[in-house]
Amino acid sequence: MGYSSFISVQPKISMSILQKGYDTLSKKAASDLKGDAVSKLLEDLILESLKFLEEKCKRLELTSSVSDKQYCAFQIKGNTSNFSRPVNSGLFDATLTRRLLKRLTNADLRTIDANDRARALYTAAISYPSATDILKKDDRKTPSKFFEDLVGHLVSKALAVNPEKKIKVLAEVAPLIPGQDSPKPEQTLPTDFVFDLGPNKSRIHLPVKMSTRERVIQVWAHQRVLDGVYGINRFKGILVCLTETNMKRKDMSVVEVCLPDQWAIYQMFIAQLFRIYYFDPPVAYAPLANRYPFIQVKHFSSFFDELEKASTGLEG
Amino acid sequence: MGYSSFISVQPKISMSILQKGYDTLSKKAASDLKGDAVSKLLEDLILESLKFLEEKCKRLELTSSVSDKQYCAFQIKGNTSNFSRPVNSGLFDATLTRRLLKRLTNADLRTIDANDRARALYTAAISYPSATDILKKDDRKTPSKFFEDLVGHLVSKALAVNPEKKIKVLAEVAPLIPGQDSPKPEQTLPTDFVFDLGPNKSRIHLPVKMSTRERVIQVWAHQRVLDGVYGINRFKGILVCLTETNMKRKDMSVVEVCLPDQWAIYQMFIAQLFRIYYFDPPVAYAPLANRYPFIQVKHFSSFFDELEKASTGLEG
Repeated sequence: MGYSSFISVQPKISMSILQKGYDTLSKKAASDLKGDAVSKLLEDLILESLKFLEEKCKRLELTSSVSDKQYCAFQIKGNTSNFSRPVNSGLFDATLTRRLLKRLTNADLRTIDANDRARALYTAAISYPSATDILKKDDRKTPSKFFEDLVGHLVSKALAVNPEKKIKVLAEVAPLIPGQDSPKPEQTLPTDFVFDLGPNKSRIHLPVKMSTRERVIQVWAHQRVLDGVYGINRFKGILVCLTETNMKRKDMSVVEVCLPDQWAIYQMFIAQLFRIYYFDPPVAYAPLANRYPFIQVKHFSSFFDELEKASTGLEG
Repeated sequence: MGYSSFISVQPKISMSILQKGYDTLSKKAASDLKGDAVSKLLEDLILESLKFLEEKCKRLELTSSVSDKQYCAFQIKGNTSNFSRPVNSGLFDATLTRRLLKRLTNADLRTIDANDRARALYTAAISYPSATDILKKDDRKTPSKFFEDLVGHLVSKALAVNPEKKIKVLAEVAPLIPGQDSPKPEQTLPTDFVFDLGPNKSRIHLPVKMSTRERVIQVWAHQRVLDGVYGINRFKGILVCLTETNMKRKDMSVVEVCLPDQWAIYQMFIAQLFRIYYFDPPVAYAPLANRYPFIQVKHFSSFFDELEKASTGLEG
């Protein structure tokens, strides 16, 4: 059965609601990422997505190859041809209420019990991407942008400052290059989020990725450029990822794709990242914190407990 | 008019011939990249592609926004809906004969006049990709693999050694990491081509890309890892690219997409690449050779004149 033939009237309505919510969020996020309007739009979109998953879909249990984790996928009831990405059942909480969500998006996070916080954050982050997997074919762009807006909003709210998405590296560097006629202040290096917390604070370099796969070396390379131009550790590198799960359609099993030894090499020979946060931290990365070169991989909920470490010169 | 409806019988035959040639080439290239069998398969595939372009297609002149370069695109006669990537008319030589091609693939390159050599190399490299643009919808994989095989063949023939596509970085590094129980010789870092020329020669790190776009920072980052693990300059970094042209469909104009200032930053703060070769060198990169940090961007035909510099400790 082809894709277009199974979309009945009800899912079309769901898709249109989510699409509209996503579009409005994208626009507002571009103008004031930490603003209350973005909080509200995120809440609405997350709750609509969860409502669709809970009311219109059923759960399909997946075979987990990851120790101590269970995964499911969502499918529209009565239809088996299209399903969501794997969802960690232990971290997913379909009953996430607007009340709890408000506490997330209002930077009230630290007062939420650590387990509840981790589950609420994961559920919020996986909601729209999972619904979109089912409702739109091969849409990788909007789940990724939604996730970037969610993380960017939570972090900028917590730091009380909006990020930049480009830095004037070239203006800083131009005077160092003989034969450059003049600095080129208009030219910038596109980056992920960078936060300037003020003169006596660290700055934060915050790449956001759905998963790392093979391209993560870029994150270390950008960190190296920042270290070179601005001085080592002037920017703290914090990578935020959703998950590293991969579903094998053949047998509907879930694995985590991890390259801990390659990461160790990047951390040894390219640059040092301060933290790597996941919404569903991969099992294979946990031991990296305990041996040289000490890559600290944690649940994203820990970010809010470590705000001071990230924003000051304190190591940790 | 949809794509499938315009493919008449004749193009279908062309597509099937090219597809078969590509498949056989891919298989042989994997087992002995510098071998004579690969020379012959490359010659056949290039000549078949040129024959298709010349006999079944017509040229459409494009508007060039690049100074001193003219571009055309190929279209099947009588059909205007599908066309090739931009082809540099000054470098394209449709009359490329098997005799000249044999001299290319038999490492007899240095005896060919520099201009003829540059044109022959460009024509060979753009042939199959252009034909495929017309015959197959959205196929980015096979043109890219063809180009990698062509460059890999010419370089390995000239160096008289086949490359590796992964290196045992992890076995080298494992002893440096406390708590690693043992080296992991079975684990490797996937790379682009690396050539080991023997104990008293440089090694060569040779990434091959159709164009660089935003992901080129990876090349500098890999070079940095090699410098860190094996010592600076143990591997000479040589990036080989086809072109940086981009066609705007709106007005059928061609631009070169270049980021010379970003490249300078990578060369200053990540690692030093020895050479960057293009089959159609972008105008904006030529001046980089004359100012710090001295990135030497040249036509790929120069590689064969600089073999000694690349393979020994001689700087240049």
